[in-house]
Parts: sequence; C-alpha cells; structure tokens
Amino acid sequence: MRYDCIIIGSGPAGLSAAINLKTYQKNFLWFGNGETSEKVKKAEKVVNYPGMPEITGQELANAFVEHKECQGLEIIDKIVSSIYDMGGYYTVMAENTFFETESIILATGVVAANQYAGETAFVGRGVSYCATCDGALYKGKTIAVVSTAKRFEHEIAFLADLAEQVYLFPFYKECEIDKENVEWMKTSIKEIKGGLRVEELVLGDGTSLKADGVFIMRNSIVPTTLLNALEVNEGHISVNRQMETNLKGIYAAGDCTGKPYQYAKAVGEGNVAAHSVIEYLGEK
Amino acid sequence: MRYDCIIIGSGPAGLSAAINLKTYQKNFLWFGNGETSEKVKKAEKVVNYPGMPEITGQELANAFVEHKECQGLEIIDKIVSSIYDMGGYYTVMAENTFFETESIILATGVVAANQYAGETAFVGRGVSYCATCDGALYKGKTIAVVSTAKRFEHEIAFLADLAEQVYLFPFYKECEIDKENVEWMKTSIKEIKGGLRVEELVLGDGTSLKADGVFIMRNSIVPTTLLNALEVNEGHISVNRQMETNLKGIYAAGDCTGKPYQYAKAVGEGNVAAHSVIEYLGEK
Repeated sequence: MRYDCIIIGSGPAGLSAAINLKTYQKNFLWFGNGETSEKVKKAEKVVNYPGMPEITGQELANAFVEHKECQGLEIIDKIVSSIYDMGGYYTVMAENTFFETESIILATGVVAANQYAGETAFVGRGVSYCATCDGALYKGKTIAVVSTAKRFEHEIAFLADLAEQVYLFPFYKECEIDKENVEWMKTSIKEIKGGLRVEELVLGDGTSLKADGVFIMRNSIVPTTLLNALEVNEGHISVNRQMETNLKGIYAAGDCTGKPYQYAKAVGEGNVAAHSVIEYLGEK
Repeated sequence: MRYDCIIIGSGPAGLSAAINLKTYQKNFLWFGNGETSEKVKKAEKVVNYPGMPEITGQELANAFVEHKECQGLEIIDKIVSSIYDMGGYYTVMAENTFFETESIILATGVVAANQYAGETAFVGRGVSYCATCDGALYKGKTIAVVSTAKRFEHEIAFLADLAEQVYLFPFYKECEIDKENVEWMKTSIKEIKGGLRVEELVLGDGTSLKADGVFIMRNSIVPTTLLNALEVNEGHISVNRQMETNLKGIYAAGDCTGKPYQYAKAVGEGNVAAHSVIEYLGEK
C-alpha cells in the first residue's frame, strides 16, 4: 500500500503537520522520537508561544503530547535512514522496513552546527545513524558510537554484542552502559578520516583512534544523509513560501529550514507544509 | 522621537510579533482593534493550534488577550491611514497623528476578497478608511458609509454630524445608529464609480446612488491603500522567507501574506518578522 504522506520528525513542526493531515483524513505515517519535542522539554521558560504565556518547556511539551493524544495521533519510534526517489513517489526505509508514500514532510530539526568534519562525506562508508540497519556490518570490528540521549542505549547494547570493541562518546547524563568491550571516552570527536571507508577518528584531545565505523545517534537527522539530491543552503533545507523543497512531493518545516529556531515558526511551517501536501495530493 | 518598529494589526500575527519585540526590549507601537483577534473569536472550534487541543475560538482569543496582558503589551485603537517613505525611515499617520519609525510590520489581515470594484482606484479621491482623518471634507455633502463592526459606530455618528446625508450599509448585527439624516440601506455595494472623484455607487439591487464619498470601516486594511509602492500579488503582500516586503524596513505577517489563513501560520510569520526586524535594527 502507498501512504499519502510520511512525516519525519516529532517536534512542534511535525506535530503541527500531523494535526492538519489528520484533520483532512489523510492516510499518513509519522516517524519520530516516540515522544514529542525532546528539545522543547529542556527549555526553562517559554515566553513567546502565543496563547500560552510564561510556561515552562516541560509544560509546553506536555501540552503538545496532550494535543497528539487528543487527536489520536501515533508516533512510530523508528529511525528513518534512507529515502528513495521512485519517480513520482518515494520509498522510506526505517530500520530495514520499507514504506511507500506519495509525499514526505521533513521536520527533522537542526544538527548542522554539531556535524563532525568528514561526517557527510563518509555516510554509507562507515558513518551510520541506525544500529538496527547497519550493525551487522561491524561484527567483530572496532567501532565508535556517539550517543546524545538515553533512549539510544538499547541500540548501543545491540552494537556492543556484535562489535569486538566499542568506543562510546556519551553526550548525556547518567549513561548506564556497562559492558566489557565498551570503553567510555572523555573527549569529543574532531574529525572523521579515512580513504574509501572510515579508518580513523581525530579526537578533541589531539589523539586519534582507529575505527572501522562510527554510529551517530542523534535526535535530529542531517537531511542530506536521507536524500542527497535535496538542496540545502548552509546546512538548512532550501524551501519556498509553500515549504516545497527542490524535490517534487518533498516538503520541509521547522528548524531544519533555517533560523529563527522558534516554536511559533515551527508550528506555522508544519501547518503550511501540511496544506501544501493536501493540495499536492488533490492535484495528483 | 523615532520608534524602532510599528506593528499594524492585532490578530495572531501582530501579537506574535509584539511578544518578540517586547522580549528583545524594542521601543515599538502596536496599532490595532483594541482587542486581539476579532476573527479568532468567531471560530466555533479550533483543532489545529498546536498545544491547545479542541478549544473554541473564544477560548483561543481569551488566551491571546491574556498573553498580551501578561507581557504588559498595549494595543493603540487608532486607524492607520497612511505610511510615508522618508528615505531610510517611515512616518505612519494614525487618525491625524504622525509617528516616526525605523521599521514596520504589517499584520493587517486579509480583505482582498471583499474589496469593491473601483475601491482602490478611488482611494484619496472619495474613498476613505478613516472618519477622523477625512470627515471634515464632507461637511454638508452626501456620503455612503460601510461598517463591518459595532466599534465603528462612534465614527459613523461623527460623520452624520458633518454630512448632509448618510447612506449606511451596516454589515453586522444590532446596529444602533439612529439619526435623522442616516438612511439604512438593505442592499450591498457592487461598484464605486466616478470621474476625477467618486460620484456614484452601483448597488446590489441594480439601482444606483449619487454620493460624494464612501467611508469603508473594516477590521482589516487593504495594504496598498497605506503604501502604494508595496508589491502585492493577487491581493496578498509579496514577502520572502524572512517576511521582507519589496520595501526596505517593511515586513508583513499573517493572512495578509497569503494562504493558508491559519492561526499557526500567522504566529509563525509574526515571530519571523519580529526576528527580521531585530536583525535589521542591529545592522542599522
């Protein structure tokens, strides 16, 4: 079966898009972090989301979750690793399962500022964003794993069972991984280097590390790693006022389209992207 | 004194812009209807404003008013009738008072669909949007007055005291104007006609009416009547992704920039416009 739309990302932009597609009874899937807006939750105080004066990030996140539940919306907690252009429709790969869709809304957040040197160049050649998808390739090998959230720990454990040696770079509090072959690193990654494939990581302390692969577990996705024909400008997806990207049927909304990184902007763009999708489906 | 910014319009887009300018401690004025979002209030149920599931329009309007008050924001209930480009800054005329400003955010809503044939052509030549500004020109004359809301009744009374004869077209319930020289019309206006100035109105019932002028009292403003150098496209103000219009220092947000006419879009655009203004002021 082919879906009307697939939304990727569960922040405010993805939520706004999902609410509108639901209202118009479209047949869509929504991939994300399982819970809305990890980033919203961390905000200490939000003063500029109109209609909700002086609330905490946690309260706004709760309101978003409540809205999601009130509309019967479900987020599929799977990592999307690739999008294939099928000429007129798209196939989305999420943890080794394929889904066909007429259109896509990318609401993947922004990670541009945190990308590693060499990261994009080695995607598919040692750099991976999905343990389930690529883990088996590293059986008996040496890998590095960057993790930005506790929710990725089951994937790290999965990788540790396969790989010979894991160098773990945990960028969150209370990491609980405890395996013999996992070494916690106290420094950061400066650059990913290699020839045809990843061979080495240059670290923040000036030393370097041999590795066959690097798994990078982030809440946001670098959109060009999903779809390299996507036009980006300084790390942001290029869109017009209708939130159309350069690829027909693919829309983007929220922080991934550029500054200002604001909840109000994100919900506005998610709304517009959904309306553009509805119009696009109508024409098709 | 010269203000950093003047916001025109008190719907969701204007509110979102005002909240952000206030947060950044800009010195700005906000013109509008005295109360936020007349249009929001009338919505029966709003399901797609993220974070506020299944609320009535009245509840959303109340939340907007609460946010305005919580931030200590004040709306100046004066009709803006003209904007003058002073070469590097602007002068805004509101009911015969002039205000200088570095920048302007137009959040004037949309009226394109309700404009009368001939309306734009006769602005300043018999068509007026401001009783206080132009009333005195019609002393002893015959005028037509279109009113879309009760709040304009004091202006109608003011006009009736000046003019010899007033033909009133009230497009709202419970009109309470009761003056000898005011005749209530039961039909609509189809076209405004004349030579150098307005001379005649063609009515919906096929008859016509001699008149020296027409006052049109609406909650929204046709932006080109404020500033005729403004670029519009099919009745909407042309803007880019930063909400810049074709005129330096002038930004637009909300329904006036085009469809979809949605609260989420409006607050997103108001937010972006304010951030663009902040950046513009920083460069200046």
